[in-house]
Amino acid sequence: MSKYFSQKYQSLVPYTPGEQPKDAKYIKLNTNESPFEPSEKAADFAKNALSTLNLYSDPDCTRLREKMSEVLEVNEDNIVFTNGSDEALNFAFMAFCDDDTPAVFPDITYGFYKVFAAVNGVPFKEIPLSEDLSININDYIGINKTIFIANPNAPTGIALSLSQIEKIVSSNPENVVVIDEAYIDFSGLESAVKLTKKYNNLLVTGTFSKSRSAAGARLGFAVGSAALISDLNTIRYSTNPYNINSLTAAVGLGILNDEEYTRNNCRAIIANRKLTEESLKELGFELTSSSANFVFAKHRAISGESLYLKLKEKGVLVRHFSSERIKDYVRITIGTKEQMLVLIEKTKEILEEEK
Amino acid sequence: MSKYFSQKYQSLVPYTPGEQPKDAKYIKLNTNESPFEPSEKAADFAKNALSTLNLYSDPDCTRLREKMSEVLEVNEDNIVFTNGSDEALNFAFMAFCDDDTPAVFPDITYGFYKVFAAVNGVPFKEIPLSEDLSININDYIGINKTIFIANPNAPTGIALSLSQIEKIVSSNPENVVVIDEAYIDFSGLESAVKLTKKYNNLLVTGTFSKSRSAAGARLGFAVGSAALISDLNTIRYSTNPYNINSLTAAVGLGILNDEEYTRNNCRAIIANRKLTEESLKELGFELTSSSANFVFAKHRAISGESLYLKLKEKGVLVRHFSSERIKDYVRITIGTKEQMLVLIEKTKEILEEEK
Repeated sequence: MSKYFSQKYQSLVPYTPGEQPKDAKYIKLNTNESPFEPSEKAADFAKNALSTLNLYSDPDCTRLREKMSEVLEVNEDNIVFTNGSDEALNFAFMAFCDDDTPAVFPDITYGFYKVFAAVNGVPFKEIPLSEDLSININDYIGINKTIFIANPNAPTGIALSLSQIEKIVSSNPENVVVIDEAYIDFSGLESAVKLTKKYNNLLVTGTFSKSRSAAGARLGFAVGSAALISDLNTIRYSTNPYNINSLTAAVGLGILNDEEYTRNNCRAIIANRKLTEESLKELGFELTSSSANFVFAKHRAISGESLYLKLKEKGVLVRHFSSERIKDYVRITIGTKEQMLVLIEKTKEILEEEK
Repeated sequence: MSKYFSQKYQSLVPYTPGEQPKDAKYIKLNTNESPFEPSEKAADFAKNALSTLNLYSDPDCTRLREKMSEVLEVNEDNIVFTNGSDEALNFAFMAFCDDDTPAVFPDITYGFYKVFAAVNGVPFKEIPLSEDLSININDYIGINKTIFIANPNAPTGIALSLSQIEKIVSSNPENVVVIDEAYIDFSGLESAVKLTKKYNNLLVTGTFSKSRSAAGARLGFAVGSAALISDLNTIRYSTNPYNINSLTAAVGLGILNDEEYTRNNCRAIIANRKLTEESLKELGFELTSSSANFVFAKHRAISGESLYLKLKEKGVLVRHFSSERIKDYVRITIGTKEQMLVLIEKTKEILEEEK
């Protein structure tokens, strides 16, 4: 830290992303990426954008928003694109939280929420998940705070139904409810996007990093009433109007032109998740009920940290969180069938060695 | 604006980017882009990155920083990459300004500085340029504020020498001085980057949007002492660690592998600037002494706004600013020789019509 760093941020603890090893020696099941390359159309569209890179990107993402409005069945002014959904979430903490309107979110959820609150100087409260790591929606009914809920939640994978989401949204009409749908496409559930037409206090965020195989392109979005989106655009045009570069916009457009490919990949991940769950249960693991592209599992015979370290030794990266309530677990991203069979094989070996 | 928008931002006036027409019917001399496509190596490197877009980008930009440290002759921990230099500037306003340490910058400069100050709730003071639109460095000696200076300045194009910059930096050891070098490569002057080794309060920002022909890729950077860069990384990891996508990182690396191409393009722009300046002077224009890839020009026979509008009618986009001290001027980006000959021809026609 320099002596010039503002007092405001001196105690800030930044977010810690999952390990990104520089070599390819690991089977990488630690950051919930898709194991599938993006659609060929993404590459085709990106190549076409290369010759005009000398020109600024379109700050309105006009073509991308047009296409997205078809896909999501909302108007173009209900959508804003962001540099990953992290940027959309940060903008929401900026726009809709302050001393008078604190943020609330579960004690166990995406670890970045509390960092966004801290960096923006926003008071926040963490609401404990139930004993079984599920969200009790009664904790969020009529609480008059700005609510952030990941649905499905991470790292538990447990999802709320659309009617449960609606109860939370409708009971807090004076506050914004942000539903972070990074993992919704793996849930088989309906997105809360359709509720944005009915509730002007609902903001839904999404990403191209998971089901759409484009984590490296950094493309996220938020959907809500035109007024909420206008607020986010005020923030965006006051920090970084050209937040989406031309190549990423092209990749996004290519991906949206191949929705069938995305759907097929989601079906494959869901099938591989089922296989992984069954195999881990056979090995004596206890799992949360995941609706996401990862499972969250613990075993009485080995600690979460130990399993993470031993899997890493054997060339498989999973994610372990050290916070008290979930330190027994590992989070395992669902990859290809081949990758999951290796994971299961290596896990079996480790459990044998523990005996 | 929604009723949920935080009081903090309700009077925020966002930055207005230059027009980005959706069709190609204009000769676009309004946003200081390069008229040249990026190096072929940029395209080659980007194509190679397309097949691994399903994986997150490297939040440390390891390869790009390695290469940049060679090019700039500083250590890797003296560099941070950002989503355009706007993001670097915003991070600097966050990190190094607050109620106790207000920001100062010229009254006529990059219009985003005052927006960055406002969005971050930072008090700021604008120091008037001299009558001739140059910066009087005595206004910045020992002032104990966080100083932002674009060098060359925009939209005037007027540059300070390295020794003038050093006087400002050395006289304010208790405050950060940010030198925004978006246009330095067109100046023939030495970059202030070398001074960062001597002064731990100097931060230099740069961009790939101008001389490096990659405005659409959104790649900026900041260079300073390891401690200053660490502070910016604390902010980055608390808002958007994956701010640089894989394609942009690849484009950047390709461009840095072809510095000769960049230098040749700069030489061409400087030659075209000279041609433009001479022709405009012949037509009776008064110009500031520009060290950038644009000229700033006024004519007693026609208002800045009128010239801008008439040029637009004739298919040439330039930029006009309505603020009082510079409303007589237009800012004209330097493009190819062919584009500048059209600009001069159309300007001549307009002046004839005014007679």
